[in-house]
Amino acid sequence: MVLPVTSDQTVIMVRQYRHGNEKICLELPGGLVDPEDESAEISARRELIEETGWRPQRMVPIGIVYPQPAVLSNRCHFFLARDVAPVGKMALDAGEDILWTEVPLADIRAKIRKGEIDNAMTVLAFSYYWMQNPAAGMPGKDISR
Amino acid sequence: MVLPVTSDQTVIMVRQYRHGNEKICLELPGGLVDPEDESAEISARRELIEETGWRPQRMVPIGIVYPQPAVLSNRCHFFLARDVAPVGKMALDAGEDILWTEVPLADIRAKIRKGEIDNAMTVLAFSYYWMQNPAAGMPGKDISR
Repeated sequence: MVLPVTSDQTVIMVRQYRHGNEKICLELPGGLVDPEDESAEISARRELIEETGWRPQRMVPIGIVYPQPAVLSNRCHFFLARDVAPVGKMALDAGEDILWTEVPLADIRAKIRKGEIDNAMTVLAFSYYWMQNPAAGMPGKDISR
Repeated sequence: MVLPVTSDQTVIMVRQYRHGNEKICLELPGGLVDPEDESAEISARRELIEETGWRPQRMVPIGIVYPQPAVLSNRCHFFLARDVAPVGKMALDAGEDILWTEVPLADIRAKIRKGEIDNAMTVLAFSYYWMQNPAAGMPGKDISR
């Protein structure tokens, strides 16, 4: 899962219909690590470009979780994609119907509080970012610049 | 899922073996909402007492997420359980092997950063708490007292 931020602190998010909860969800881009991917970072960079058409200057790992350790062994890797810039075209997989949208980073917490962002892994990506970004009032190494 | 905090800012957590990732995980207590439960809060209070033997003075709803909206419609409700006190006995379901443990709230972020806490829903519960607790440097209504 990727948290793509532009140099002016705008987040590139995606809207897509989710069959599980039958809603159009405001989420961060992401996807699966393919068996041939050398690292989760490579997969994250690919999914970002495919789903949004934006490319990062630098990827920063910000956290890893077990989404459902009671029954599954898979892990979710979170990356901050810094200084993303548009490359102009998306490359969606068959069956994907995704629109990207710009959301000011400063508006994210209000959207989470209001329930406009309620996908667990998306909220977690922002949480790991805030936990490591002293500018957001959380302790840790500054990875925001 | 419940974030139980004592009056001296200690979190009551649980350790249990998780078959999915084959690890003993440090987590928050929680469980399923039974069909006959009148609310998620009732379920949360029951699971807290059953899994830890601690009882809250007050339950505060702090967030709701869709854990996996791509394929599932279920939601996860997070509650802050304030001023918890021991009632002395746990009442585990058959097959549950759970030990409770005390962790200072001030140590949680370091444990998340080090990966000692890496269950997605557990990290999310703390994140929703911090997002609503100005003392942690995050904006929002103060629910810590």
